[in-house]
Amino acid sequence: MKVNGKDYRTVWFPEDDTRAVAIIDQRKLPFAFDILLLRSVDDACAAIQDMAVRGAGCIGATAAHGMYLAALEACESRDYHAALVRLGEKLKATRPTAVNLQWAVDRVVKATRNGRMPTEKVSIARAEAATIADEDAAWCRRIGEHGLPLIEAISRKKNGAPFNILTHCNAGWLAFTDWGSATAPIYAAHRAGIPVHVWVDETRPRNQGARLTAWELANEGVPHTVIVDNAGGHLMQHGMVDLVITGTDRTTYTGDVANKIGTYLKALAAKDNGIPFYVALPSSTFDWEIRDGVREIPIEERGGEEVRVVEGLAEAEVRAVDIANPGSPVANYAFDVTPARLVTGLITERGICAASEEGIAVLFPRETR
Amino acid sequence: MKVNGKDYRTVWFPEDDTRAVAIIDQRKLPFAFDILLLRSVDDACAAIQDMAVRGAGCIGATAAHGMYLAALEACESRDYHAALVRLGEKLKATRPTAVNLQWAVDRVVKATRNGRMPTEKVSIARAEAATIADEDAAWCRRIGEHGLPLIEAISRKKNGAPFNILTHCNAGWLAFTDWGSATAPIYAAHRAGIPVHVWVDETRPRNQGARLTAWELANEGVPHTVIVDNAGGHLMQHGMVDLVITGTDRTTYTGDVANKIGTYLKALAAKDNGIPFYVALPSSTFDWEIRDGVREIPIEERGGEEVRVVEGLAEAEVRAVDIANPGSPVANYAFDVTPARLVTGLITERGICAASEEGIAVLFPRETR
Repeated sequence: MKVNGKDYRTVWFPEDDTRAVAIIDQRKLPFAFDILLLRSVDDACAAIQDMAVRGAGCIGATAAHGMYLAALEACESRDYHAALVRLGEKLKATRPTAVNLQWAVDRVVKATRNGRMPTEKVSIARAEAATIADEDAAWCRRIGEHGLPLIEAISRKKNGAPFNILTHCNAGWLAFTDWGSATAPIYAAHRAGIPVHVWVDETRPRNQGARLTAWELANEGVPHTVIVDNAGGHLMQHGMVDLVITGTDRTTYTGDVANKIGTYLKALAAKDNGIPFYVALPSSTFDWEIRDGVREIPIEERGGEEVRVVEGLAEAEVRAVDIANPGSPVANYAFDVTPARLVTGLITERGICAASEEGIAVLFPRETR
Repeated sequence: MKVNGKDYRTVWFPEDDTRAVAIIDQRKLPFAFDILLLRSVDDACAAIQDMAVRGAGCIGATAAHGMYLAALEACESRDYHAALVRLGEKLKATRPTAVNLQWAVDRVVKATRNGRMPTEKVSIARAEAATIADEDAAWCRRIGEHGLPLIEAISRKKNGAPFNILTHCNAGWLAFTDWGSATAPIYAAHRAGIPVHVWVDETRPRNQGARLTAWELANEGVPHTVIVDNAGGHLMQHGMVDLVITGTDRTTYTGDVANKIGTYLKALAAKDNGIPFYVALPSSTFDWEIRDGVREIPIEERGGEEVRVVEGLAEAEVRAVDIANPGSPVANYAFDVTPARLVTGLITERGICAASEEGIAVLFPRETR
């Protein structure tokens, strides 16, 4: 998607440097747009661990690209395959709970088995990493294509009035390689000429909405307004929201949706006001094992510093301030689970389905048991 | 209530200076505890206008104390009464929508009519201001007394396990002269030996929870934890909240509750999880004219800077940082309305009643039409 008018992905092979991987350093956004060049597996590990990249799809694609660097480094070892696997394990260990990370590393390792000479394996690793990134982008683009008719249908009743979409957190292209999940239908609608306007929840504690989603939308020229997470209910009560779309970190095969903390509150407000609440996801985000999301999905409790310390610009520098009463304890639950009964539908790369075991099975008959 | 172990009110007449009014400068809390001495009506106006004091009860009591300063200043005019009224109008103009402000000023002016000589009128003004502050404290203390049995009843079922109360914003003693509204039952329960623990919503955009409520509770030794506004739904889903209590800025005679933005979302979550949701208020907060709160109560839209700019401590100094994508528009709706159907009950100085026209009429038969 666009940054200052030029098209970017979150991770790519730079044309002028065949031994490097390029990423957007998301830690500095929106205050600075910096591109980082990764020249070793250690660089790739640091980028993932220190959250220069974040979001399931983006982490997976970065790990795959890191495996190209691993394929290069393995050439210096006597046992090429053992070295490649060892470097892959290093990448996998950076964020142990990220499913896409494991999957992407394993996929590149497996692909290299088809090559005989190390040089051939290096080429295969590079091609496989590019394919993984392309697939991620294609899935998101298709989510946008499936979401577009939904927006068109609701928009038609508005006779050209602005179409207000509320979103929470960043399920944008920065979290994937391109397009994003929740944002893909928004970008598709904007490009189709529908007068979309997005209410962007700031998304405490890490402010991914105010920082990343707002930055994305501004660069694509999509009208938007940043609001505090508290505001959505009021907007919905007053007819100022036509549709809610969020992403998800994990969705059960029964349709329960784990996503950034606070998503559940927006789903309740949407239900109370008769507003459609959709969740957009590539099918890789489904958990085919878990039935009851609220009871069974473990919710990460992160450090209280994320709540206590807020980062922003002051006098053109990025600074952090401690906003809470000094000495008061702080808790930081990172996700919550929205029960399927509050979810109007799921927008996947295969189409839209009901958030229920039956609905999901229609689109994914082989995956559901 | 206690500050560093010593009892304070938000506004008082200092014993050693008969021509001054003392207030706690709430703008600096919790980062600094400063007492401001007001020596003129202009000082009092500035304190209210610049939000050194805030909260309906506290603003009313400060205005009443300011009228004592006005009574002193009026002694220098030929027409005492005209001067007093003129100074009162100046105070009233500081925050034109605050009902308590008008009411407190008028009450002091009216009381001074019973005095003949200016010196007598000055004494009357001082006594009336003290009475207004005392009444505010007494109402809040009674709210605590009526709320205590409610907490005791639910707590009994918990067999000594911590009793978790969630609150939003600051309806604490800082918003009144003492005790607070939502916090009064909490302080009463804590003093009665019930093992209360309070989840304190940080309350974006102005962070009154993380700053003021957390500071109050810490000073009273009440166990508490600061959370982001997004977290409450998750806590309620997992049995970690036994009771929600908030304050209100205006409550209709039908039981609809206007309060800080985000209150409605917590009420929805409480309803969805079968958790009692109570609103504490002195009866002065009822609006006896409005039937439909969601449709008829005007919601103040404040400047976007409150959302965009966050204040906190950095290197022992209070600093502000700009947290959002530069250039992205920001909206700031200050309040929302929770429909009566989501409110379990109202805790008033006269007792607890249902949040309905009938319920309120039982306690306030003369006020309801």
